[in-house]
Amino acid sequence: MVHNFNSGPSVLPKEVFEQASQAILDYNGTGLSILEIGHRTPLFQDIIDEALATARELMKLDKEHEILLLHGGASTQFFQIPMNLLNENETAAYLDCGTWGTKAIKEAKLFGNVNMVASSKDKNYTYIPKGYDIPKNSKYFHYTTNNTIEGTQMHVIPDTDVPLVADMSSDILSKTMDFNRFALVYAGAQKNIGAAGVNMVIVRKDMLGRVTRKLPTMMDYRQHIEAGSILNTPPVFAIYVCMLTMRWLKEQGGVAAIEKINDKKAALLYDTLDSLPIFRPTVAKEDRSKMNVVWVMEDKELEKEFLDSCTANGMVGIQGHRTAGGFRASLYNALPIDSVRILTELMKEFATQKA
Amino acid sequence: MVHNFNSGPSVLPKEVFEQASQAILDYNGTGLSILEIGHRTPLFQDIIDEALATARELMKLDKEHEILLLHGGASTQFFQIPMNLLNENETAAYLDCGTWGTKAIKEAKLFGNVNMVASSKDKNYTYIPKGYDIPKNSKYFHYTTNNTIEGTQMHVIPDTDVPLVADMSSDILSKTMDFNRFALVYAGAQKNIGAAGVNMVIVRKDMLGRVTRKLPTMMDYRQHIEAGSILNTPPVFAIYVCMLTMRWLKEQGGVAAIEKINDKKAALLYDTLDSLPIFRPTVAKEDRSKMNVVWVMEDKELEKEFLDSCTANGMVGIQGHRTAGGFRASLYNALPIDSVRILTELMKEFATQKA
Repeated sequence: MVHNFNSGPSVLPKEVFEQASQAILDYNGTGLSILEIGHRTPLFQDIIDEALATARELMKLDKEHEILLLHGGASTQFFQIPMNLLNENETAAYLDCGTWGTKAIKEAKLFGNVNMVASSKDKNYTYIPKGYDIPKNSKYFHYTTNNTIEGTQMHVIPDTDVPLVADMSSDILSKTMDFNRFALVYAGAQKNIGAAGVNMVIVRKDMLGRVTRKLPTMMDYRQHIEAGSILNTPPVFAIYVCMLTMRWLKEQGGVAAIEKINDKKAALLYDTLDSLPIFRPTVAKEDRSKMNVVWVMEDKELEKEFLDSCTANGMVGIQGHRTAGGFRASLYNALPIDSVRILTELMKEFATQKA
Repeated sequence: MVHNFNSGPSVLPKEVFEQASQAILDYNGTGLSILEIGHRTPLFQDIIDEALATARELMKLDKEHEILLLHGGASTQFFQIPMNLLNENETAAYLDCGTWGTKAIKEAKLFGNVNMVASSKDKNYTYIPKGYDIPKNSKYFHYTTNNTIEGTQMHVIPDTDVPLVADMSSDILSKTMDFNRFALVYAGAQKNIGAAGVNMVIVRKDMLGRVTRKLPTMMDYRQHIEAGSILNTPPVFAIYVCMLTMRWLKEQGGVAAIEKINDKKAALLYDTLDSLPIFRPTVAKEDRSKMNVVWVMEDKELEKEFLDSCTANGMVGIQGHRTAGGFRASLYNALPIDSVRILTELMKEFATQKA
């Protein structure tokens, strides 16, 4: 039995694996593999229609918002967003609260002015900055809702009239929130939406068509909206897996239902970490992520032994990010609570042994 | 039994479907699905290493050329190429010989000057222009080697000293050619390389770093080269399917061996079409594509009946492109010659019935 704590690509529901595996041999009794169906056929149209409708339903999106499934990953959005929303002489506000936000800022500077309103770089991004001001004339305010690498999460939506743009790659669909408050949301699929190779962008239509620069066709959100996300050959299989994963989430009771389980998983792990002095979570308590739990061991010498013990017990992906060290357990929607139980039992056992 | 003549996404080898299906349940006995493995693990590194090495071997590429596996599809390359290779005051030469070339020209104009050296638009792109001049000071010469929609193919590499840039989406790996003569080659994977959702770019290193504009990170070929095509989360599964498909091609004897079979398939179909007056291939004989065979029926009234007959005999994807009408049979590497035999038998039978 494998317990997959990977940070993304990450665990997906067992039912999704089974259905996707079968669809590669024979998609819905057509005699065709899902990998060989045309993207402009009713077969694929049904898939993308269900994917978009389910996403809309899960997030309770209003009609002002369009959902796109695009190539390129969230990293492409780092530049595609300012390219679509920011003129050269205009300013966008950015929050620097982790690796991804820093990268987004770098790309935005190629297209306009960036006002970095706050940063938590001073403490290695182990907390979320608070009490900063977002100037009213900012074209938009960009932030990362959950920092996959550093293990922080913003638990409230910033209170501002400036249009909100959020990278939700690692916590979208994990908790209820008012998605309609956002002007633009983007997320790589490979955590809670589905498989790697596709990216979800949710955009409020009135944000578009305001920049003066000419956009390459493939970078223009309006073109993708008009084409219903089939502007060129889309990543057919990745979209199919997203559809299956969101269908599964709906069957679990949707975002509110999974949020309760996610809360339990995170509480179980943080409570265990807090109760065992040999482990030390690295993030400020109020900013802890429920998706990516990051910790170190007080005695660095013990880290390898504990990691080996995790590996011996079937745990995968528990090692910290290559830039951060220590440990990280990602608790995405599809991770069973039993995997967290087994990890916490192992922690207690290990702590007792070393006491 | 299904005979899949889809133009892309299209038929892949049966062995690839079987291995990919199994890998979704359990990749190589790891207990993990291929969909949940991390992209910075040795598991995935082995996959992409084999994909790149096999591509290099199949195309006999020299060390001056780098191979990238990128997001975005060939349509993204329409603008990424001029963005990387063409300054605003410089001129690139383009051949307009079909739908895709026309789109490439449109995007290039956003970044520099385009000199359209020839066009076959006058005859609905049913032939390849010849005898045009490529000015020596052109930064590069762009053309489409095979026109998926119109069914034309360039059977010789243009004789010029200007750096060659080619969209080979629909005939790469189908025939031997001197890939080292090209400055840049690109191809969506969903025909002969593998599954939709990934794009191959082959670039000669000395072409890069010559433009003055600042490039977004994800659009900069040099960044992808440095990162070994793992700059951000790559389309893991699509790359895996490419690796399997290219491994299969190597096992068949490589490009030279598949070319012989492709020649036989194309000859069988064109000979049949030429021998039956009720069918009329639409493309000039010397420019006929061996990958996408396009024809109409002399009596338009019979087209629906013939199409229904194809469908009743398990043929899929035989209808012409939505913009072109008539019929199109795509004969990519993985299409068995038996599928072509069954189609040609049906044609003969149909022609006899209507005689």
